[in-house]
Amino acid sequence: MQNSKPDIEEDLERVGVAGLRTIVVTEWKGKEYRFVPEIELVIDLDKKRKGVHMSRLVEAITESIEEESMIRHGSLEELERDMLERLKKKHSYRRADISMNTELVIPKKTPVTRRKTMETHDVGVRVFYSNGEYRKALRVNVWGNTLCPHALRSSNGKSHIQRADATLEIETDYENKIELEEMIKCVEESFPSEIYTLLKTEDEVYVVNKMFKRPKFVEDVTREILRDAKKRFSDCEVRVRTVSHESIHRHNVIAEGKCRC
Amino acid sequence: MQNSKPDIEEDLERVGVAGLRTIVVTEWKGKEYRFVPEIELVIDLDKKRKGVHMSRLVEAITESIEEESMIRHGSLEELERDMLERLKKKHSYRRADISMNTELVIPKKTPVTRRKTMETHDVGVRVFYSNGEYRKALRVNVWGNTLCPHALRSSNGKSHIQRADATLEIETDYENKIELEEMIKCVEESFPSEIYTLLKTEDEVYVVNKMFKRPKFVEDVTREILRDAKKRFSDCEVRVRTVSHESIHRHNVIAEGKCRC
Amino acid sequence: MQNSKPDIEEDLERVGVAGLRTIVVTEWKGKEYRFVPEIELVIDLDKKRKGVHMSRLVEAITESIEEESMIRHGSLEELERDMLERLKKKHSYRRADISMNTELVIPKKTPVTRRKTMETHDVGVRVFYSNGEYRKALRVNVWGNTLCPHALRSSNGKSHIQRADATLEIETDYENKIELEEMIKCVEESFPSEIYTLLKTEDEVYVVNKMFKRPKFVEDVTREILRDAKKRFSDCEVRVRTVSHESIHRHNVIAEGKCRC
Amino acid sequence: MQNSKPDIEEDLERVGVAGLRTIVVTEWKGKEYRFVPEIELVIDLDKKRKGVHMSRLVEAITESIEEESMIRHGSLEELERDMLERLKKKHSYRRADISMNTELVIPKKTPVTRRKTMETHDVGVRVFYSNGEYRKALRVNVWGNTLCPHALRSSNGKSHIQRADATLEIETDYENKIELEEMIKCVEESFPSEIYTLLKTEDEVYVVNKMFKRPKFVEDVTREILRDAKKRFSDCEVRVRTVSHESIHRHNVIAEGKCRC
Repeated sequence: MQNSKPDIEEDLERVGVAGLRTIVVTEWKGKEYRFVPEIELVIDLDKKRKGVHMSRLVEAITESIEEESMIRHGSLEELERDMLERLKKKHSYRRADISMNTELVIPKKTPVTRRKTMETHDVGVRVFYSNGEYRKALRVNVWGNTLCPHALRSSNGKSHIQRADATLEIETDYENKIELEEMIKCVEESFPSEIYTLLKTEDEVYVVNKMFKRPKFVEDVTREILRDAKKRFSDCEVRVRTVSHESIHRHNVIAEGKCRC
Repeated sequence: MQNSKPDIEEDLERVGVAGLRTIVVTEWKGKEYRFVPEIELVIDLDKKRKGVHMSRLVEAITESIEEESMIRHGSLEELERDMLERLKKKHSYRRADISMNTELVIPKKTPVTRRKTMETHDVGVRVFYSNGEYRKALRVNVWGNTLCPHALRSSNGKSHIQRADATLEIETDYENKIELEEMIKCVEESFPSEIYTLLKTEDEVYVVNKMFKRPKFVEDVTREILRDAKKRFSDCEVRVRTVSHESIHRHNVIAEGKCRC
Repeated sequence: MQNSKPDIEEDLERVGVAGLRTIVVTEWKGKEYRFVPEIELVIDLDKKRKGVHMSRLVEAITESIEEESMIRHGSLEELERDMLERLKKKHSYRRADISMNTELVIPKKTPVTRRKTMETHDVGVRVFYSNGEYRKALRVNVWGNTLCPHALRSSNGKSHIQRADATLEIETDYENKIELEEMIKCVEESFPSEIYTLLKTEDEVYVVNKMFKRPKFVEDVTREILRDAKKRFSDCEVRVRTVSHESIHRHNVIAEGKCRC
Repeated sequence: MQNSKPDIEEDLERVGVAGLRTIVVTEWKGKEYRFVPEIELVIDLDKKRKGVHMSRLVEAITESIEEESMIRHGSLEELERDMLERLKKKHSYRRADISMNTELVIPKKTPVTRRKTMETHDVGVRVFYSNGEYRKALRVNVWGNTLCPHALRSSNGKSHIQRADATLEIETDYENKIELEEMIKCVEESFPSEIYTLLKTEDEVYVVNKMFKRPKFVEDVTREILRDAKKRFSDCEVRVRTVSHESIHRHNVIAEGKCRC
């Protein structure tokens, strides 16, 4: 029935499954990673066909995972590309797009007492195929803070501080090597101070002092991420959105920017 | 069919509709208020009956609203009680429970420049009937901030500040007069400083200075709400939960307490 | 300080306030409407300036509302344009963008018993200014259902049914008259059946039979919305996303399409 | 400072960290599991002390994880108990409570074609200490569906179907052996039909037919879970909440029940 002619002939851009959660395993620099991402896999649908065979999309996902013990993928993007290639043998398409949203846990040391701490970030990895080419879009969402430079001056060395988060998205060719870990670093270092899950008193003093030495508007954070991205990455489109969860307001303040590296 | 005997005989505690959104109008101290709350209305179900007639629950809600132009209810709790009484004529129950979650917008003046500003808070109003008695539970969620007293001392007058929110819930007899506005005030004044949608530079300086003069842990905020609730309210059970959205951590810190006033 | 030169010179696209909730009043076809929308107001920021004066953005919003009793705006988009024009006098910008996300409650009659029922839909209204021109984007999110035509055939008259929701977005010139109510109708009628807050048994039979007579994939719903939008609206860009909350799967299935009318 | 006397003397029930995400590893029946749960760890605070030493709570969590390679915990509850015991050596408390919310991925076979499929469920594991005793609360949230028996009769073999989800919570002594997998099975089998991530046409026919043979109200699902829980589990308190995401209404219908096994 899906192959029959529909009553209404309209090309559709993106048809498929969304919110599918399953376990995936990768092997990155010799270390095994397991994720339970939320997956979206969509393809275009020609106006001459009534529907997409949804179960084939699901099979393209599950088969890549099933054989995981034999062919271990090096990264989420490699796994996603494998899924799009498998799907090609099951279902025709001109454009296909797969994304996985999950979390990455990164070990760190606290700044002064050098204790081990684990920092968890939301990340997204998307691979899409169009006109014979694969491209990808990588996304990290990293938490930090802002300290208002304006209040710092007008309030005589005092200011308001708040949690902030910044999202850095990079779109580029599939082959361009860009690491999520480096994207996270790019964002973390652009805040007044990095933040930590564990902080002993000496660490807390260090972080508080660092924030007051590097006061930043939300605009400053976005600009610093853009500048830093230009140094770290090449041949890509960069988008940044920083959100400051104001401690003196009920609303947030935001700053978005973009550039080509 | 709902009245027939079920295959499995188990009393059920709470059966009904949830997430129903509709417009309701009240007249409070001579002023008209309109809300689009999310409504939950549930009753108990005896083990001898297969199901609840769900459409009668919906009718009890919609009829109270339809006739609104003639009988204008003075508050959300009065409206809810009317819905429970209407329902009694349509459907038998031993226990019934209705709640509305919505938002209350309160006009304020900024602290120094005295500009008008509007502050929006999430509130919940619940009326429940059991053993021939009506009781109610009122809830406000108010945003403010915390400023760490420990960091303030160890960092020589600097500290970390963050957005915080506190939820105050009061359970009491239906007849006990307690105003959401006063509950909001009770929470707002327990933070290092109230917060505002609009702040000109002089107002911002005032708020920043006030926060540094009244440093508070999340524990201090919860305790101050409890103490203040004891002064303002009587014959009720009080529960408080304060959440501090840490600017130096990825996690939150929380403090919960309760008392009888 | 905001007017000073920043350390990093990067143009920013969108800087401003987000998640601001306040009460707004409109008068539409002689009837008063009140909303508590979530508002986002952003402007561009030139690379030569350190920051946006955030409080002026807030003032542009609050002043439009304060004077509401005198100049009553006819719609959310009229109110938003007024806010952008007020802002122009307070803060320079080349591009500005304001959006309000709120809910619209629409009275209906149940299909057979003709009882009054109220249906609540999420809507968004956005006005943006660029190159001397105002444009707008209107959005409705409407709930309905899908009934699988493929299962209906292979399971001999039985099928699986589920809640679905569709989002219709229209971007067009500010002056183009397009009503949210008509957009909602366009979506509602594209599902196998409209849905209702209140349904008595006869109404329920009607809705169930209607769904089985009009089985639809998620792709069919999206296509019908696109076809219907072409009949109802003109001089605009249309985007549709339908999501079927599958009753036989843990994931959703989606279909997105777009057209120019 | 935390040990000093506070201005306001009020005992607090629950003070600690919430929303902390980190990686944890368990070894369950010889197989390694990795989770990135959201963790909440709280203790009581005596009215004579100003605050909790939050970093010690974090250390109790991170140290249990750090040494994971040597002492591998057999389950999330074993890991949580270890964290509470470690905390005891760092910080005094009378009551402590730790919970982890995460997801469990369970391999299944499709009902007819016997393909491998992976099903992901939200689960929660909580251990709490009070009066010298450890207890625990386990929670699973499982998705399925409802098919209205009333509409099935009044619409002559047709009905409305929708996604539903049910939450089963069991509170019991720490030592009572109860498996999340069995709790999931208890819920899954109580719906008109289990659901699957992958379904080929023959599987879909099977699921659709099964649903029509076992029509159930949301009340029926809750009662069946309660009855089944009584058979499977002992010495525990059971709570069930089923939510039906109605395909013919904008609201949900819910049924909650509880029992002692």
